[in-house]
Amino acid sequence: SAWSDSLGSQARSISVEALKPSDTFPRRHNSATPEEQTVMAKSCGFESLDSLIDATVPKSIRIGSMKFSKFDEGLTESQMIEHMQTLASKNKVFKSFIGMGYYDTYVPPVILRNIMENPGWYTQYTPYQAEISQGRLESLLNYQTLITDLTGLPMSNASLLDEGTAAAEAMAMCNNILKGKKKTFIIASNCHPQTIDICKTRADGFDLKVVVSDLKDVDYKSGDVCGVLVQYPGTEGEVLDYGEFVKKAHASGVKVVMATDLLALTVLKPPGEFGADIVVGSAQRFGVPMGYGGPHAAFLATSQEYKRMMPGRIIGVSVDSFGKPALRMAMQTREQHIRRDKATSNICTAQALLANMAAMYAVYHGPEGLKTIAERVHGLAGVLSAGLKKLGTVEVQGLPFFDTVKIKCSDAHAIADVAAKHEVNLRVVDKNTITVSFDETTTLEDVDKLFKIFAGGKPVPFTAASLAPEVQSGIPSGLIRQSPYLTHSIFNSYHTEHELLRYLHRLQAKDLSLCHSMIPLGSCTMKLNATTEMMPVTWPSFANMHPFAPTEQAEGFQEMFSNLGELLCTVTGFDSFSLQPNAGAAGEYAGLMVIRAYHLSRGDHHRNVCIIPVSAHGTNPASAAMCGMKIVSVGTDAKGNINIPELKKAAETHKDNLSALMVTYPSTHGVYEEGIDEICKIIHDNGGQVYMDGANMNAQVGLTSPGFIGADVCHLNLHKTFCIPHGGGGPGMGPIGVKKHLAPFLPSHPVIPTGGIPAPEKTEPLGTISAAPWGSALILPISYTYIAMMGSKGLTDASKIAILNANYMAKRLENHYPVLFRGENGTVAHEFIIDLRGFKNTAGIEPEDVAKRLMDYGFHGPTMSWPVPGTLMIEPTESESKAELDRFCDALISIREEIAQVEKGNADVNNNVLKGAPHPPSLLMADAWTKPYSREYAAFPAPWLRASKFWPTTGRVDNVYGDRNLTCTLLSVSQMAEEQAAASA
Amino acid sequence: SAWSDSLGSQARSISVEALKPSDTFPRRHNSATPEEQTVMAKSCGFESLDSLIDATVPKSIRIGSMKFSKFDEGLTESQMIEHMQTLASKNKVFKSFIGMGYYDTYVPPVILRNIMENPGWYTQYTPYQAEISQGRLESLLNYQTLITDLTGLPMSNASLLDEGTAAAEAMAMCNNILKGKKKTFIIASNCHPQTIDICKTRADGFDLKVVVSDLKDVDYKSGDVCGVLVQYPGTEGEVLDYGEFVKKAHASGVKVVMATDLLALTVLKPPGEFGADIVVGSAQRFGVPMGYGGPHAAFLATSQEYKRMMPGRIIGVSVDSFGKPALRMAMQTREQHIRRDKATSNICTAQALLANMAAMYAVYHGPEGLKTIAERVHGLAGVLSAGLKKLGTVEVQGLPFFDTVKIKCSDAHAIADVAAKHEVNLRVVDKNTITVSFDETTTLEDVDKLFKIFAGGKPVPFTAASLAPEVQSGIPSGLIRQSPYLTHSIFNSYHTEHELLRYLHRLQAKDLSLCHSMIPLGSCTMKLNATTEMMPVTWPSFANMHPFAPTEQAEGFQEMFSNLGELLCTVTGFDSFSLQPNAGAAGEYAGLMVIRAYHLSRGDHHRNVCIIPVSAHGTNPASAAMCGMKIVSVGTDAKGNINIPELKKAAETHKDNLSALMVTYPSTHGVYEEGIDEICKIIHDNGGQVYMDGANMNAQVGLTSPGFIGADVCHLNLHKTFCIPHGGGGPGMGPIGVKKHLAPFLPSHPVIPTGGIPAPEKTEPLGTISAAPWGSALILPISYTYIAMMGSKGLTDASKIAILNANYMAKRLENHYPVLFRGENGTVAHEFIIDLRGFKNTAGIEPEDVAKRLMDYGFHGPTMSWPVPGTLMIEPTESESKAELDRFCDALISIREEIAQVEKGNADVNNNVLKGAPHPPSLLMADAWTKPYSREYAAFPAPWLRASKFWPTTGRVDNVYGDRNLTCTLLSVSQMAEEQAAASA
Ligand SMILES: Cc1ncc(COP(=O)(O)O)c(C=O)c1O
Ligand SMILES: Cc1ncc(COP(=O)(O)O)c(C=O)c1O
Ligand SMILES: O=C([O-])O
Repeated sequence: SAWSDSLGSQARSISVEALKPSDTFPRRHNSATPEEQTVMAKSCGFESLDSLIDATVPKSIRIGSMKFSKFDEGLTESQMIEHMQTLASKNKVFKSFIGMGYYDTYVPPVILRNIMENPGWYTQYTPYQAEISQGRLESLLNYQTLITDLTGLPMSNASLLDEGTAAAEAMAMCNNILKGKKKTFIIASNCHPQTIDICKTRADGFDLKVVVSDLKDVDYKSGDVCGVLVQYPGTEGEVLDYGEFVKKAHASGVKVVMATDLLALTVLKPPGEFGADIVVGSAQRFGVPMGYGGPHAAFLATSQEYKRMMPGRIIGVSVDSFGKPALRMAMQTREQHIRRDKATSNICTAQALLANMAAMYAVYHGPEGLKTIAERVHGLAGVLSAGLKKLGTVEVQGLPFFDTVKIKCSDAHAIADVAAKHEVNLRVVDKNTITVSFDETTTLEDVDKLFKIFAGGKPVPFTAASLAPEVQSGIPSGLIRQSPYLTHSIFNSYHTEHELLRYLHRLQAKDLSLCHSMIPLGSCTMKLNATTEMMPVTWPSFANMHPFAPTEQAEGFQEMFSNLGELLCTVTGFDSFSLQPNAGAAGEYAGLMVIRAYHLSRGDHHRNVCIIPVSAHGTNPASAAMCGMKIVSVGTDAKGNINIPELKKAAETHKDNLSALMVTYPSTHGVYEEGIDEICKIIHDNGGQVYMDGANMNAQVGLTSPGFIGADVCHLNLHKTFCIPHGGGGPGMGPIGVKKHLAPFLPSHPVIPTGGIPAPEKTEPLGTISAAPWGSALILPISYTYIAMMGSKGLTDASKIAILNANYMAKRLENHYPVLFRGENGTVAHEFIIDLRGFKNTAGIEPEDVAKRLMDYGFHGPTMSWPVPGTLMIEPTESESKAELDRFCDALISIREEIAQVEKGNADVNNNVLKGAPHPPSLLMADAWTKPYSREYAAFPAPWLRASKFWPTTGRVDNVYGDRNLTCTLLSVSQMAEEQAAASA
Repeated sequence: SAWSDSLGSQARSISVEALKPSDTFPRRHNSATPEEQTVMAKSCGFESLDSLIDATVPKSIRIGSMKFSKFDEGLTESQMIEHMQTLASKNKVFKSFIGMGYYDTYVPPVILRNIMENPGWYTQYTPYQAEISQGRLESLLNYQTLITDLTGLPMSNASLLDEGTAAAEAMAMCNNILKGKKKTFIIASNCHPQTIDICKTRADGFDLKVVVSDLKDVDYKSGDVCGVLVQYPGTEGEVLDYGEFVKKAHASGVKVVMATDLLALTVLKPPGEFGADIVVGSAQRFGVPMGYGGPHAAFLATSQEYKRMMPGRIIGVSVDSFGKPALRMAMQTREQHIRRDKATSNICTAQALLANMAAMYAVYHGPEGLKTIAERVHGLAGVLSAGLKKLGTVEVQGLPFFDTVKIKCSDAHAIADVAAKHEVNLRVVDKNTITVSFDETTTLEDVDKLFKIFAGGKPVPFTAASLAPEVQSGIPSGLIRQSPYLTHSIFNSYHTEHELLRYLHRLQAKDLSLCHSMIPLGSCTMKLNATTEMMPVTWPSFANMHPFAPTEQAEGFQEMFSNLGELLCTVTGFDSFSLQPNAGAAGEYAGLMVIRAYHLSRGDHHRNVCIIPVSAHGTNPASAAMCGMKIVSVGTDAKGNINIPELKKAAETHKDNLSALMVTYPSTHGVYEEGIDEICKIIHDNGGQVYMDGANMNAQVGLTSPGFIGADVCHLNLHKTFCIPHGGGGPGMGPIGVKKHLAPFLPSHPVIPTGGIPAPEKTEPLGTISAAPWGSALILPISYTYIAMMGSKGLTDASKIAILNANYMAKRLENHYPVLFRGENGTVAHEFIIDLRGFKNTAGIEPEDVAKRLMDYGFHGPTMSWPVPGTLMIEPTESESKAELDRFCDALISIREEIAQVEKGNADVNNNVLKGAPHPPSLLMADAWTKPYSREYAAFPAPWLRASKFWPTTGRVDNVYGDRNLTCTLLSVSQMAEEQAAASA
């Protein structure tokens, strides 16, 4: 009771503490109450939570306590919202005509509310478990179909991080296609500046030479050119016929990459029809807010020929165990988690949620609706051009355009200043050049306002409306799109709000998310994504900022960046942060590039060896490979720790060329390695830098820190430890923190210069990592509010409870499954591995069988066969209640009993409840039941399922079939029938 | 294409029309495209939609066209949001200390996003179909348990409209309990003024005399007193021990009604322990925003003894066909839809969504959390009181208080003015009295600000924090709550965000809503509740206004009211509107009271006969009864039309005493009666007024209007025609429109005077109808944005398409089911009735069997056995696509085939797929299958169900069992077991 002596007695006074606001956040995020903490610690053999923690986290790396200069106590939920409103009010959202890959758009409200603001969509995990992910898999297949239809190329992936990195991935593909034999990549100067800079930065690692060239000057005479990148329409708006250009390139054996614009492609001849080999771009303007730079989905389309070189996740059609079409991620063997340094790319987390939004935008508008929007945008641009010509105060360029008008003038900056007074942003290309880009939200009134701005004080003797009838389409007839697109019924059915609403909900109902149950994926930290954290993301003052708006208009964002940078420095023990990398893998790449720049700055051009333990995540070697590093593997010992003697030997052997060690802490095995100090010292002693993979920060915050441990640089997966929801496979953010000596090298940006936060004294940026200056700025409020509401104590408690929860589960499970690795005192960190390898022999059971059977219990399987094949890695996080942990343990224990039945010969090795899992309703309710086990037991193996059950929608999906019969776009009904016939034949 | 001659040709100019913004709304709301309209009209035998409409709507009542002075063209979705933001910015949300039944509260963000902003919850219908409503039924049972636990009385209903009307309902109960023999009702003056006024207004109809009396002066000597109403804590804050008071009343045979406050009851002795007979109040401060007056859930609790007299819906525990506990609405025989003028009350639509929010607030906080909040509020009030005493500038009253401090001062208005400068609102009780009410959102800083305000410029030599330690609880020990509450596990499990999130989603998953499929309830108009319409509802500038804030702070609301009033006048052909009634039935009552006041004003005291056709909705006679009117029924003819000769005779017979006719148009039978002109004339000729029930406005808007037809007054169910979602049984709004001669009598309000919009020249208000001046103001933006985005053409098209859709369905179904009533040209209006009466004989099938079987097809059944027993009434609305209509028709046709199988003797009369419906998974997946039909057919009778199926969660629920064994609160686990054992015994 708040009253010192309970309300019942005579003298009852109240404490000031009890009068503080009551809507505190940590108790909503952290699960276990103090009483539960003690009960759970005791069950693990410790007197208290703190003694469990003391026994778990090595003393040598334990920090005293963490203290923030701001928000140390933690704001309450309502205080947080108020603070965010204050920040929001400091952003001045001007009308943007800047273009450059970012356009204002109307997010259809039904999509806003039912996807972007809906935890049923945004808390989903990447669809590795296909049978409980058919909803978003369908939506991503729609996305791939949208991309292939509009680009005119037959294959697309399910999103990349942004247009700039997509172009860089395409560049890498060209290099690969030509087997690394031609080392020049040409970029036409009509590409966006950020695209050019990202490719330049990226080229280094592949030892590619980038030549930026005027289109007309492009030449392949050197014979050393692997590819050429052009933009269509160009960054300054021009719409050119690339027919001859492509022919010429192909004649020289050069691959053509085209960066393009989806809206333009609804009316322009598609790149595929010019013969482009690879097409990239952003789907942002399809209903995804600009968000001061992101997140949005980029795309990459190519031909089937290059499918094995395609970066990123691809959704494909396969069949399930009943022979019915079912979707899944295709050709995973290309990806870093399998191929490691030989992977096509380091990309892991992508932009699934945003790809889904863009796909649904296309579903809602349909081909006709999209074309109407495009024609309107083009029409308004035509009116602007006609009006400016009439006005005569500036000179309008003569080339055909789609949405962007290029203007020559005597003082571009002066005009931009006038525009700013009208709360309008123009793009100043140079002192005599302005471009004006239109979008879906542009109105006739906007055009009138522009006339006024360009009239320079003179009266405008016409209106936009009055000019319209005289305006002609500016698209040359040869470039007008003739080919149909989006003819599939999905793009032609859901054009009313009710129809789309129901389509969204039908898909959602097929997908398990954190709204249903815990998703205890080791290494992924699927914790609570609290509503208060999510709310500011869709506020217009954050969502509608153009990333290249003058920074003084974005004071709210800038203040948040500066606060967040400082908070993250405190959390990590670093001196400066870059918020540019927009995924964990991008952070790794950026971090290694920082190390590389550092060595280069010291003349150490030869330092290019990167030591990586075999237990590292696939992105680590893939990222190192992208930096041109030579990878040296070191093994682990029986306890799962890095083999220190081996590491020492490797470091000493490569002493002269040692660049870096990549190390995850606690280890990917879920253990706090006691030798981490020593490991850091070995690397430093041999001239290397320590890169720490921060994916496991959830076991560090407030207890230790990368900086304290001795790392020089580290990325944070804000979508793990810092509450950005996984969105079914993205978005994420991978900011990097560095020690002081590395701060000067943090990435910058060609349009809006950036660097470390707090800013170091001098800067020597490594180049550009992401298309937007601060990456996916729109989702930074999530991590920011999380930290600010938790305060230092709440965050530290979170780490402790995350560790407690893992140990509690390990304890409950250890009598049923071997727990693979433990620390010195027998405890695990925030995650742990159970070993299923034995069951292969005793019962023919594989980890996959257990994961699929878990679906029948209403759960998403843990991380499977990584980092150790044949195992499951479980990470409960601090947000899961004891009741939920118990339910999950009960399920696993019950499954262990099911395995025992096979072991004992009571169940058939090939035909048992595990091999038959998951069991969808179509099977369970079929008239014929031919399984040797009971229907009821298949469906309801645990009591809670009677009260509420999540149903898998397909039988087990066949991975091999799908990869053999690759289909990555929507099937028409007739194709569906063929597919099914073929599969059952 | 937007380009006049397609982009392909040479001369391609664009029209200004094509340059208008493209995010128009009507095409998202109205389903059928122009092409579909023609196809569908043709299938009904008409050349075009317009010719179908011309044949359907009688010429004599057809208006030329509707034209708005504002928004006639319709705003686009983004323009609408901009307009609403402008309005929102005109509301100045001051910190409110006004109290009076409305308190600021923190809506837990997880509840905000997952209930209030979630179409999965807000688009649900009233849970008449229990098997697909177990989620909200559980939540409402939680609500009832919350109310009974806190009030200390054993029975609660599932919400009433507001505290004031709840008190009036309680008054009516007292009258009923004493069988109308004691005609005085005493109201203590310590009740809220709006409560007093509503009771006074309401008393008239029951012929009750209301005496408002100081508590100490209450006396029962007359022997004529049926009940007494007191408030606890009192409106000015005092917390009194009512022990003696109740004893004294009971000794005189007087029933005691207590109005109370839920938060206070977490620390105060509950009314039930004083012996109160009926307890009423509002659950608003349990996490429901003030919303400038509503919507919020009110409650009424009483003892089992009075259960049959309880107004409103009650949720009860029963069993399903497998003997398992299952929930449903209990004792429906009390309600107007069955008992009509003999009903306990006219209430129909209540406040289900808000009751759910309040219940979830209690679930989230739990008993300890609620008590913490209460003690904090009380502590802060204590600090204020202590500080003011120290300051000495005003005099603090001496009585014990919970959250409200009463202050005597020399110039209350002067202090309030100072407060307003600090953006603070106080309650000025009279020129020497102020009260300050605290709530969950009050902070120590607020208290400091109040000190500053009350210090009148003098320095404040202390802070709130510094005073806290010396402050004592002001609650007398005899009034401190000792009894436990909310001990059920549901209130003690879901205190973290993840746990609550999942609880909400588990419940949601059990309930069918518009997110799944059409809900074609005749008379209920379950149309699209568009996201854009819903968005402003949860904006803080609308949501957080106190209803008694000075109107100059609520300019945004006021401007909206004025625009909306004008728009509704245009839509209805009336001259003035009252936005006070907060449900349809409240509108009926208000409208009849207007008519009554009109007659009285002319000296026609004797005019008290109300003619009501037998086909009228139950609320009509129930409302008329509440106005003390004598009801005369008239029948219908074979075609379903009012029997005009009979009506004429009745009117003439009662010529001298005729008050009104209540008529629904089109009729509740779904027909445009051709005689409506004549009917109005007959009534007018005989001195009566025509009251039109506007529930069927969806067939009138833009085509005709009540005013044009000849009605004098009409209510609109904004939750039908004007897009307020049904919320699982409320909220709603029932504003009334009137002709000029009635405008002066529109309701006012004792705190903030109101009247007609636009305002008539003179006013003679009938009294007060609802607790808040403009009813549930917070949901008015929904209807406002609907009208403003549709524009006059969009709205007219909506009516046409609603009619088209009904005719299309009737046509498809007529070969399978008799369509009961049609207009002159063989068409139906916006809804139609199919006749199932024959199947009783041919196959033993009842409408209920068809409705339950429809669940297996994924649909909510249509309106059952109303207005004609043995039938289903289908209303598709304009928002349903042809594809959806076809799916529903396919289901009904397939069910007809299932009936035919019984008729043919192929299926057993008592054991067939209809009688066995619905089929929940627990049955379908049971090992044993004993039904004579196939599992698979039971589960998947239509192809679309394979792609996506909504599962009923229980077998058919037994209504009779539940009413015989009435349980209206949560069962503990042991009770559950007993219940189950008893049921199966
Ligand atoms: C240990 C580890 N490192 C790096 C990554 C890559 O992060 P991202 O997916 O954000 O690119 C992951 C992602 O799962 C990881 O678990
Ligand atoms: C014809 C008719 N009149 C009146 C009402 C009562 O409206 P409410 O439920 O808003 O009180 C209804 C509600 O279903 C109705 O259908
Ligand atoms: O499933 C595949 O498309 O490979």
